[in-house]
Amino acid sequence: MIGAGRSSSSLIRYLLKESIKENWQITVADLDVALVERKLNRHPNAVAVGFDSNDIVKRNALIDGADLVISMLPATMHIDIANYAVQQKKNLITPSYVSPEMQKLDAQAKEAGVLLLNELGVDPGIDHMSAMEIIHRIKSEGGKIIRFESFTGGLIAPESDNNPWHYKFTWNPRNVIMAGQGGTAQFMQDHQLKYIPPHKIFDRFKEIEIEEHGTFEGYANRDSLSYRKVYGIEDVPTIYRGTLRGKGFCAAWSVFVKLGMTTESFTIENSETMTYREFINAFLMFDKDLAVEDKLKRYLDLSAEVMEMLVWTGIFSKEMIGLKNATPALILQNLLESKWKLEEHDKDMIVMWHRFEYELGGKIEELHSYMVVLGEDQTYTAMAETVGVPVGIAAKMILNGAINLTGVQVPVMPEVYIPILEELKDHGIVFKEKVL
Amino acid sequence: MIGAGRSSSSLIRYLLKESIKENWQITVADLDVALVERKLNRHPNAVAVGFDSNDIVKRNALIDGADLVISMLPATMHIDIANYAVQQKKNLITPSYVSPEMQKLDAQAKEAGVLLLNELGVDPGIDHMSAMEIIHRIKSEGGKIIRFESFTGGLIAPESDNNPWHYKFTWNPRNVIMAGQGGTAQFMQDHQLKYIPPHKIFDRFKEIEIEEHGTFEGYANRDSLSYRKVYGIEDVPTIYRGTLRGKGFCAAWSVFVKLGMTTESFTIENSETMTYREFINAFLMFDKDLAVEDKLKRYLDLSAEVMEMLVWTGIFSKEMIGLKNATPALILQNLLESKWKLEEHDKDMIVMWHRFEYELGGKIEELHSYMVVLGEDQTYTAMAETVGVPVGIAAKMILNGAINLTGVQVPVMPEVYIPILEELKDHGIVFKEKVL
Repeated sequence: MIGAGRSSSSLIRYLLKESIKENWQITVADLDVALVERKLNRHPNAVAVGFDSNDIVKRNALIDGADLVISMLPATMHIDIANYAVQQKKNLITPSYVSPEMQKLDAQAKEAGVLLLNELGVDPGIDHMSAMEIIHRIKSEGGKIIRFESFTGGLIAPESDNNPWHYKFTWNPRNVIMAGQGGTAQFMQDHQLKYIPPHKIFDRFKEIEIEEHGTFEGYANRDSLSYRKVYGIEDVPTIYRGTLRGKGFCAAWSVFVKLGMTTESFTIENSETMTYREFINAFLMFDKDLAVEDKLKRYLDLSAEVMEMLVWTGIFSKEMIGLKNATPALILQNLLESKWKLEEHDKDMIVMWHRFEYELGGKIEELHSYMVVLGEDQTYTAMAETVGVPVGIAAKMILNGAINLTGVQVPVMPEVYIPILEELKDHGIVFKEKVL
Repeated sequence: MIGAGRSSSSLIRYLLKESIKENWQITVADLDVALVERKLNRHPNAVAVGFDSNDIVKRNALIDGADLVISMLPATMHIDIANYAVQQKKNLITPSYVSPEMQKLDAQAKEAGVLLLNELGVDPGIDHMSAMEIIHRIKSEGGKIIRFESFTGGLIAPESDNNPWHYKFTWNPRNVIMAGQGGTAQFMQDHQLKYIPPHKIFDRFKEIEIEEHGTFEGYANRDSLSYRKVYGIEDVPTIYRGTLRGKGFCAAWSVFVKLGMTTESFTIENSETMTYREFINAFLMFDKDLAVEDKLKRYLDLSAEVMEMLVWTGIFSKEMIGLKNATPALILQNLLESKWKLEEHDKDMIVMWHRFEYELGGKIEELHSYMVVLGEDQTYTAMAETVGVPVGIAAKMILNGAINLTGVQVPVMPEVYIPILEELKDHGIVFKEKVL
């Protein structure tokens, strides 16, 4: 296992526990060897190795000595490991999206008889597996899927939800700031292609009601169209994938997006001596009489509720930013990191929700499937659990010969997702279904 | 002279005329040798050469045989020519912005004693020269500049203005479609940094009244801040550079920008069998009851006037697009090229307007300076004249030893801009001033 950062605690716990009956020897390599040692807690079946990801000789030696490699490094770092794994005929698991470079290794991996199994976390990961289970079930009953909507959110648990945004940073803050900035969102609705440019994504959210858990807001992910092929529903009239947030979040976040504050494309001169109030004012028209708050309210026609959420962030305060030549996105992140910080006893929450409509026997049926997982604490978060446990289960299946695939794969086939979904239930990762 | 495309007619005419008394031999190289031959019209001092810009051997031989090189190729193609020109100690003129790669040649060019003179067209070019003339004049009188605004537009002449947009394509259509998409507009107003993201640029235009010529709309160019240094007015409290359009243009163009139609970042599947009506509908929310027009009007809260301008373009028509896997920007360009086409007797117009405020003797003075040039016909357009003639004059000055600079330069020094502005008057390129 290479990389033992924040979301790896649950995976390590799973691997250590299984190692007893499976008779595994586990090597966990990370730059921070002391961190790994704490997580391994002198377990007899595991060793911690200090390891700089630039040290290719050491990395290769670690891979050479393994039967299976798990990469929990940042997504861009998997490809070098994958290249060497194929060369040395070692199977590899990653929780990340298949990059175009990874996809290119498919033929080579197949020839070498090597499996590169990706998208095994929560999103991507559990979303694929839980959706495919239902898609295959409906098809096997003779149904035809006419609508597929799927939303996932990494949120704060209700018991720790004590701010007007109903949000705290439970994973990489930069990714949250940049959400929706990657390009036009593309989806399909009733046979019509639909496109939303980044500055409109948070205006055009959907309200989503989840039984027992209340109302959420879902905004469109960048590319829903490519999932028609991945899921084998090429002709589906409606496909829409998105991200969940709490009520009120989207309208308020949309303000930062529309002002132009979520960009990394330029730096602000003398930002270190600027106040947050001057920062937001730089995105508003000049007016020597109107207050910053009044200019903003008029510019984007904002409600009192949204204004209150903005005031709460401190964006109108005369506090100094203190960051040199920073980008707008970095300044905004810096402000929000102090406000959306997880407190010691805070717990996170992962929410996933699928909606299917299908024709069966001349009738249209609607099925909702949803999963809500609460974190145990700040180490075994819901994020760590839902990302790590599927990876651990897949590792066990590969080592035991229960998965015999080769090439670049994602978990959309029954022989992979059925056992994983089944074992996830033991970890409280359970889907409920509701037929309408 | 390398490159003899659309905006080169006036430059060729100028060079041919001057060649008699200056005793020049002119070589004009272009892919389309027949086009060059027509433009040269068997002039005794000029030869046409057919030339593919990928043919480096031929290009180098042409440069070797010249005393001065003028590159009228697309902006990205100057750098290869500049590299060879420095190596062979040949002076070079281009009408384009100094690219970062070009700037890097500065020390090398100085060492070789070579001049790489850029930004000698209209914008950039005449804008620099006319502004610097006034900035230097005000400074020499002891004035302190506290406001500099500068706008230029390539427009249609009033006599040819017969559509509700008051606009036709008088230069590269793609550049018009992509205008404002390059990133956040940055300027300074009363000591406050101001930033406008692309989707708000056309909403936040300024009305500009030009004596004898009526009212125009000016939208912000990407980077005004860097001109503080170029113009030697580092501490100026207000600097704003922009582009001029006719009245009503900005609000209507803003609709295409806000819908997300001006992007090249993705292609639309099956665009060849889509209608323009389906194309605009793809950027609007799904609604099975409302008409496309009604959805758009509500989505962006549009006036009847803007709706009429949009209807005029044919964007709501059921005509087939007919372009395969096209980007939104290309589809929009395709539609507008049929609507904003120059007719045979149409004339174009270049408008430039500067506004200065300065403190002198305890008083604040305001000075406007403006230039309006009409095209003669579709060959000698105002665009060709204002881009080509300054290049021609600079060529004459270099060949006659009147410019003795070396390195990478732009025309901001009196020894360059004074003679050029003076001779431009003979071509009807004249600035008028108005003191308020």
